[in-house]
Formats: sequence, structure tokens, C-alpha cells
Amino acid sequence: MKFSVGCDIGYEIIEPATLIFNIEAIAGGRQRILGETLTITPNLPADEKTATETGNRYLRLTAQPGQLRLRYTAEIELDALHNPPGMIEEVPVARLPLDTLPYLNPSRYCPSDQLARFANRQFGGIAPGFGRVTEICNWINAEVDYLSGTSDTTTTAADTFALRAGVCRDFAHLGITFCRALGIPARFVSCYAWQLHPQDFHAVFEAYLGDRWYLFDATRMAALDGMVRIGCGRDAADTAFATIYGAVNPLPIEVWSNADGNTAEEWTTDAVSVARS
Amino acid sequence: MKFSVGCDIGYEIIEPATLIFNIEAIAGGRQRILGETLTITPNLPADEKTATETGNRYLRLTAQPGQLRLRYTAEIELDALHNPPGMIEEVPVARLPLDTLPYLNPSRYCPSDQLARFANRQFGGIAPGFGRVTEICNWINAEVDYLSGTSDTTTTAADTFALRAGVCRDFAHLGITFCRALGIPARFVSCYAWQLHPQDFHAVFEAYLGDRWYLFDATRMAALDGMVRIGCGRDAADTAFATIYGAVNPLPIEVWSNADGNTAEEWTTDAVSVARS
Amino acid sequence: MKFSVGCDIGYEIIEPATLIFNIEAIAGGRQRILGETLTITPNLPADEKTATETGNRYLRLTAQPGQLRLRYTAEIELDALHNPPGMIEEVPVARLPLDTLPYLNPSRYCPSDQLARFANRQFGGIAPGFGRVTEICNWINAEVDYLSGTSDTTTTAADTFALRAGVCRDFAHLGITFCRALGIPARFVSCYAWQLHPQDFHAVFEAYLGDRWYLFDATRMAALDGMVRIGCGRDAADTAFATIYGAVNPLPIEVWSNADGNTAEEWTTDAVSVARS
Amino acid sequence: MKFSVGCDIGYEIIEPATLIFNIEAIAGGRQRILGETLTITPNLPADEKTATETGNRYLRLTAQPGQLRLRYTAEIELDALHNPPGMIEEVPVARLPLDTLPYLNPSRYCPSDQLARFANRQFGGIAPGFGRVTEICNWINAEVDYLSGTSDTTTTAADTFALRAGVCRDFAHLGITFCRALGIPARFVSCYAWQLHPQDFHAVFEAYLGDRWYLFDATRMAALDGMVRIGCGRDAADTAFATIYGAVNPLPIEVWSNADGNTAEEWTTDAVSVARS
Repeated sequence: MKFSVGCDIGYEIIEPATLIFNIEAIAGGRQRILGETLTITPNLPADEKTATETGNRYLRLTAQPGQLRLRYTAEIELDALHNPPGMIEEVPVARLPLDTLPYLNPSRYCPSDQLARFANRQFGGIAPGFGRVTEICNWINAEVDYLSGTSDTTTTAADTFALRAGVCRDFAHLGITFCRALGIPARFVSCYAWQLHPQDFHAVFEAYLGDRWYLFDATRMAALDGMVRIGCGRDAADTAFATIYGAVNPLPIEVWSNADGNTAEEWTTDAVSVARS
Repeated sequence: MKFSVGCDIGYEIIEPATLIFNIEAIAGGRQRILGETLTITPNLPADEKTATETGNRYLRLTAQPGQLRLRYTAEIELDALHNPPGMIEEVPVARLPLDTLPYLNPSRYCPSDQLARFANRQFGGIAPGFGRVTEICNWINAEVDYLSGTSDTTTTAADTFALRAGVCRDFAHLGITFCRALGIPARFVSCYAWQLHPQDFHAVFEAYLGDRWYLFDATRMAALDGMVRIGCGRDAADTAFATIYGAVNPLPIEVWSNADGNTAEEWTTDAVSVARS
Repeated sequence: MKFSVGCDIGYEIIEPATLIFNIEAIAGGRQRILGETLTITPNLPADEKTATETGNRYLRLTAQPGQLRLRYTAEIELDALHNPPGMIEEVPVARLPLDTLPYLNPSRYCPSDQLARFANRQFGGIAPGFGRVTEICNWINAEVDYLSGTSDTTTTAADTFALRAGVCRDFAHLGITFCRALGIPARFVSCYAWQLHPQDFHAVFEAYLGDRWYLFDATRMAALDGMVRIGCGRDAADTAFATIYGAVNPLPIEVWSNADGNTAEEWTTDAVSVARS
Repeated sequence: MKFSVGCDIGYEIIEPATLIFNIEAIAGGRQRILGETLTITPNLPADEKTATETGNRYLRLTAQPGQLRLRYTAEIELDALHNPPGMIEEVPVARLPLDTLPYLNPSRYCPSDQLARFANRQFGGIAPGFGRVTEICNWINAEVDYLSGTSDTTTTAADTFALRAGVCRDFAHLGITFCRALGIPARFVSCYAWQLHPQDFHAVFEAYLGDRWYLFDATRMAALDGMVRIGCGRDAADTAFATIYGAVNPLPIEVWSNADGNTAEEWTTDAVSVARS
């Protein structure tokens, strides 16, 4: 299935500033870039780099005072893997690929050590496997209110757990935290999300089950097989769409994701995987 | 200079458990392993893996109820690089190697976002460079009491900042946090530390300055050029000497580090680097 | 019913120190002091004062280096009021006695603002009244593990909520927090508790319902009508049995509560009130 | 000196709600009410009560959907006591009036237990007395940025200490916290503040020194002898100008304080006390 995604981002630069962007679609896995454009105004030189482990693409530039705009557009072929959820097992820590182990560690926004007892009380009795992570998402969806303005950039999953309100990044952080507490590697994914309303960068998570990373979205606000992955990491600290060193004022942004020639349909309940590794 | 290091670790395994150890010396950089032995009792099969990026060596094994012991010994040739501190500059974010950028992000125990204003107020006016990180260590050493029992595995650098007490891992976390808040990549290093009293695993940090990672120890409890690096990562969450999945009781451990044929001397005030990359 | 209660407390005074004790039984309400003794060794002058609002009795003394011992014994007649729980209603804020309003405010260990959304989600749908506070106790008893060593003097109800473990003071703080979040005045009570095993100072809470303060114990570790009230306040910060200004080392303490001439019987499920006001 | 103070407060009541106001000037001490008016629109019955201990005046009313407005005006004669700061001593805990002891306890926003070590390191070496509390205010004024939007209703003094930014209530909380940590009773005071720009309810603190409560304002934004006290308590949790039970939307408020017939002059550096007790 083909998607046209993109964003238009702007800043009023107050003093010379260095900005690192992570807005380009990841290439690889089941995500193919058919074409893309990036326009930086003014036309500044940019440093590009793709992280080996994750495929995240970073763009670094230094801007002088004035207005800065980035416009990124991409045509993406998504060939998401669909598997029947019932067959997908958790992997005992004794057999997990060693590359996945860092995703068991607590991180800035996912203090899995703090919520371990609750996670084990609440989800410990559920049969291990894909279905257990689905139950985690069900719990979050039922027990946490999706409510803008209730969290900020310092909010951890433990805060969200107490507060019972948050936005997509908080839902993802809480899902990751519970998974790690149960011994399931989990990581944060930023993406362009088809059918998300209103359109914005979206945040979901991946859990390592069976032999790969599967997507989960505790917000249930978009179709799993319509997500174009941008960045993945331990939590939101690793996948900001823009990291800014210097004094700038953000301007309104625009984000979009359209399915070419597709009409809306029912969202899949399959286990969906797109990741490269 | 040659060092004989090692440890003897034991657990009473209550139920079948998987344990992941990170106790072996890193090979590479200016640290050469002349010889080493690892004895696991009982003689269990172990899974070994060296992380590409850091060189951390992981040992994973699954143990049945009963006693488990690991004894590791190594002969290490340390050829620490010594540089004059005055010449080493900070690298603007615009020119930092992209591999170092994750070490600018806040992490579980180093919430650099929370202490950013203080870091900039206190250290922002100091001339950038190696000397500024030395000032950070001076500040920590003067303002935080080294006191066992004041912190635990949930203690963050923000907690330590308020509490003004902690142990070596807390000192390292606070140093890392201040560095990141100033735009200096910083990471946590666990090590065998010569002349540390009493002997134990030690925790220090590395900051990226000039063209490499330099060691810093805000506790001032051991010589920088006598540290045999074991693990490095974002913070203590990445470098536990043992991560345990299952019910076990720890037994007393022993850790040692001796300089072969050396007598104690004055500790260096040079800038010291041992890291591979 | 008559109770013999008391305690034996000791300190090694390192430097001259001022100590404020709150260990004597409250006189008044349905609690009558038939006789009591207080022995301070050495025989120091002590300042005594009873707080008007709560009846808490404070004993202040200044001790010189050496050993300090207090021994308090009291014979108490407890004529606890027993009411049928089903008839006791919550009081709308519009009609609460104004004296009870401070017990709706968040306090050091009971940040009712932080857990308000959860409290309303979990308990908001339960019919108001005594039964709703019972449901709060049931929830705490089911969802939190009673486990020594999991909390300390900085632990708030929000911490306990995340951690899901604590001791009697944590159980009381959580109950108070939920009540306040629902608009029910609630306060902390320290007491001598008959049948508590092992014997120690106990912590429970009171909620204002109907026309008085009723006792609740989410730990279910002692009979409600066998509790001799010592101190009441907003939370544990107000009711420490000893507050110490100066360098001292605590010695082992002994606490007891015996029912004169009574054999153990089934614990009451009535609504129980002892408070003066 | 005479002051005309007052406020105009409004709410859009969504559902029937109970509101408790604490906006009227305290009568007593060196503050005399020459005249006052209170207009509630619509003309609802209100429950009034003055707290014995503090003199805080509470106004409780229940409003139906629609708009609610309160307008309070008062003519106040302030005869603030001025004392030379150099003569005012701290009172050892051994001799403090027992009524002041609750103001040594940690509270919701003033966790003096958490900042005790810092307070003693930073201020422990300063000569006890009025001057030490002045030094605390100097430190806060120098080290914390006054910056709207950096704190919210959950922000504690420990948060402000780490963040190094806040508004008047945060400055007061931090001052109170340091005082308590040093054994000086301290409490929160809300007030009308002459010469405050822009006009709003102001928050300061009182410390018990010598034989009375003295005013301190770490923000240095208004004259100490031009503050008309409204509420005092352990922290902001006790002195909200409005506590609301029910769904309401706040409307813009207006607050004023004018000195009748006075022109601006230099602010006093005397020790100033207005409190009743």
C-alpha cells in the first residue's frame, strides 16, 4: 500500500542555532521509499546520517537569525507483515537476541523499575505472548484518558500511571514500561500515521515477540499497517522530530499522511510488523 | 602499566533464573587483555556477546536452584592516553560526531532536562573545554557528601542534586547530567579501580571533548589512569554488573584491582582517555 | 473495654538534643484514661502541652549526652461507639463543618491532587457513604502488598500507589489521599493497637462521615475498637512519636497493648468512632 | 497607613458547585478593617467562618449554573511593627511556643525533609537570627528566576530547587522549606500587596523569630509593610483564594491594592510584623 507523507516545519531563529531533525522516513524493512524531497529554506548545507542500528535518519544544520523552513515529502510503499496474533510467543530472556536487551532497561520516560510490582500483579497472570501485550494496550486504553495539556516533556510513565491522563507519547511510554517490567523488550516509534485525526506526528511502540518487532498503539487512533516509521529508540528522548540548540521560536507545523487511491477501511487486528530489525 | 583485576560473585538461586553479567574487561582502545579466566560453578553453558558500539561484554546463563559462583580474573595492560587538559576543547553540537548524539539525551538516571537551568546558571559562564568539566567535578565533590545508604536503585541525578548525598554512581550520574545540559556528550562507565578503598566495582563517567572520550571521577577516589573499563552506556541502567531475571539471593562479592609491581604514587591530573571510540 | 498500653523508648544522646514526644494516649471522646505513669530516665524536666484542636499530647525535653529512656504506661477505658455502617452518609462539602476542611487539603504524604483522576475513576461510581470508604480500604488491601523495607520517611501516597507495597503508614496515607480526592475529610491517626502482631505503634486513618470521625484500617491488622488513639493530624508528618533535633542514636523500642481480662474474639465490622471531635 | 484593597472574581458555573473563598482581609494583629463590602452576584446565601488559630476568613457558597461574581473591597489600617533586624534572635526548638511546632513539619509543597542537607550545608554556618532568614531570601532571589509558566499547582519546593524558576508561591515555598529544615517555624501568607506590578494576589512567608512572626518576601516585588494579610497556613494548599468542588470555568480576575494618599517611597529594610499571633 502506498502513502504520501510529509511535513512542513518552521522556526523563527533568534540567535545562531544548531538543529537536528529526525523527520525522514526510515528506509528498509517493509518500508520502501519510492521518492522523496526535502526543501530547506534558506538553502543551508545539512549534515545527514543514518544510524546503523535503528535506521533513524538525522539531519543537522546550523541556522542564522531569521526564518527557517523545512518541507519534506515522501512516497512510501508499505508492505507491512501481517501475522495471526495467536501464534506469536514471548521470548524468554534466556533466548532473546542480545541486541534487544537494551530495550529491557529503564529509560528517561519509561522507569520500568518503578512500576514492576504493578505490572506483575496486573499482567503477570496473563498467558505470555502477543495477547498479553494486547491486554496491556487494552488496559491503558481503558484506564488512561487521552487528554491534551495534561503532560509535558518531563512526564514519565510513572507520572502518567498516577495521573491517568496523557497523549500518544504518554500512552506509548506506559506500554513500553509495562512490557519491560515483564521482560519483553519494547521501544518507542515515531511515525506518520494514516487516518490519524487531527494529523500530527504520532507515537506508538514496538514489542519484540516471536522473531521480530511488532507495532502496538494503545491510543487506537490509527491503523497499525498505515504507519510510516520515522524514528525508533528507547523513548521519546531518542526520537524527537527536532532537537534544538539555541534560541528559536517554533512556528506552526503541518504533518500529513495520505493513502494513495485507498478509501478508509476497517483497521486490521492482525499482528503487524514493519521494522527492519 | 599492568593490572590484575577480577571479581568473585555468588548467588543462591531460589528458582530457575536467567542472569546477564557485564564483568569482563573491555578489549580495545588503550586497554589490552593479556590473559583472563572465567570460572562458572557449576559449569553451566554461557552465551557470550560483545556489543559493537561500546565493546561491553555480556555473559548470559540460566541457572537452576542452588549456589552459583562466577570468578573472573584478568591481566590488563593499560596504556592510558595522557593529554594536557588546557588544550582540549568542547565540540559544538554542529560538529559533534553523530555517534555521540545519543549521549546528549536525558536517560533514566540522568534527567538533564530537569537540571538544565541550574547547569547553565552555575557552569554556563565558565570557559568551554576540559576545564569546565573539571569544574563540574569540583562542584560535585564539594557540594555532595559521599555517604553510603543515602541512595538506592531508583535515585536519579535530580534526587541527588536535592539530597546532596550519594555514592559513586550518583556522583557519575550528576556529572553526566550537567554535561548533557551544557551540550557535552557524557556517558557512564563501570570499572575496576586501582587504589579504590574499599575495593568494589567503581562508577565514573566519560565526556566527549576534543576528538575523544575522556574519563572523569567526581568522587576523586581512584586514579584515572588506573581504571579498567568494564561497561559503558547511558547510565547505570545500561551497565549493571548483573541483571537478574528470577528469584535469587546475592551472596557477598569480592572485587580486586592490583597494579603489578607498582607502588602507590601521586594521581595524575592529566586528561586521561582509554576508550576505544 | 479496658486496655493496658505503653511503650519503652530509648536513645543514645550524642550531643545535647531537644526531643518532642507524642506517645501519651489522648484523653477525651470515648477514650478515658484511668491511670498512667511516665518515667523519664534521667529525671529531666519536661514541657507538656495538649493541642486544643486534636487533643494530641506533646512532651518536650532537652537531653545531655548519655542514655535517655522514656517509659509510659496507661490504663485506658475505651467505649468505642459502634454504628451500623449502612446508615452513615457522606457529607457534601457544602455542609461539612468548617473545622474539617483542612483535612481535604493535600499534605506532605497525601498528595490528593495527584491521584484525583484515579480516585474518581475507581471510586467515583460507588454510592457515597461509609461503604465507599470501606471499598477504598478493600482496594488498598487487595492491591498493595504489606511489606517492610519498601518505603521510608520520604514515601508519599503517590509513590505507594506506583510501587504497590508499603507498611501501615503508607496504607493510611493512601486511604486518606483517596478520601480527600473524593471530597471526604480524612486524617492520620497513630495508636496503640490491641492484637497487632508484632506489637508496634500502629497507623490508621479517620474519615469524616455522618456527624463524626470514623476509624478505618486498610491493613486489617487490628480490631478497630481496640485502638487507643495517640495522635491525629494531616499525615505522619504531624504525628511522629518522636521528633528529634540533635544527634542521637535510637535504641530498640518496646510497645504493648493488652486487653484486660479479655480473650481474643472476632473483629467488629461495625462503624467505629472514638474521636473527641 | 491606610490601604484600599479588593478583588473582583468570576466563574462560569457549569454544574452546581460548592466554592470556598479566602479573599477577605484578616482582622486583628496590626491590621484593622475600617470598612469592607462583599457583593455576591447573584445574591446567594453564604456561610462564613473565621478560623480560630489563623484568623483566616472562609466564605462558602453553592452556586447553580450561570455566572457567579464576587466583589470584595476593604479599607485597611495597617500599623505594621517595625523592628531593627539585628536584634531578633532565632528561638531554639526547646523554647519555641508549642503552637508554632506544626510549622516545622514538612507539608505538601514544602518537603523540608528532602532539602535538609542542602539547607544545613548552605545556611547552617550563618549566625542564627533574623539575618539568616534574610540570607535565605537573598539566596532564593539570586538563584531562582522569577518566570511565569514554569510551575503549576503540583510544583513543590524540591521541584523549584531543581528547576531554578518559579513564581511568588514557589519562592515562598522554598523559603519556608529552608527555614523548617533549619528548625525555624515558617508559614505561607497570601496577601494584597501594595506596589506589586502587575497587581495580583501575592504570596510571601512568615518566620517565627524572637517573639513573633515576621514577614519575608524572597521575590522582593513589594514592600513588606504594605501587605494586607488574607490567609496563612502551612503552604499554598491551605490558603487558596478559591477552592472549588464542581465544574466551573474561571473568568478573568482583578485584584488591587492602593495606599490612600501616599506616594511611592523606598521600601523598608526593617523587620516587619503584622500577624495576630
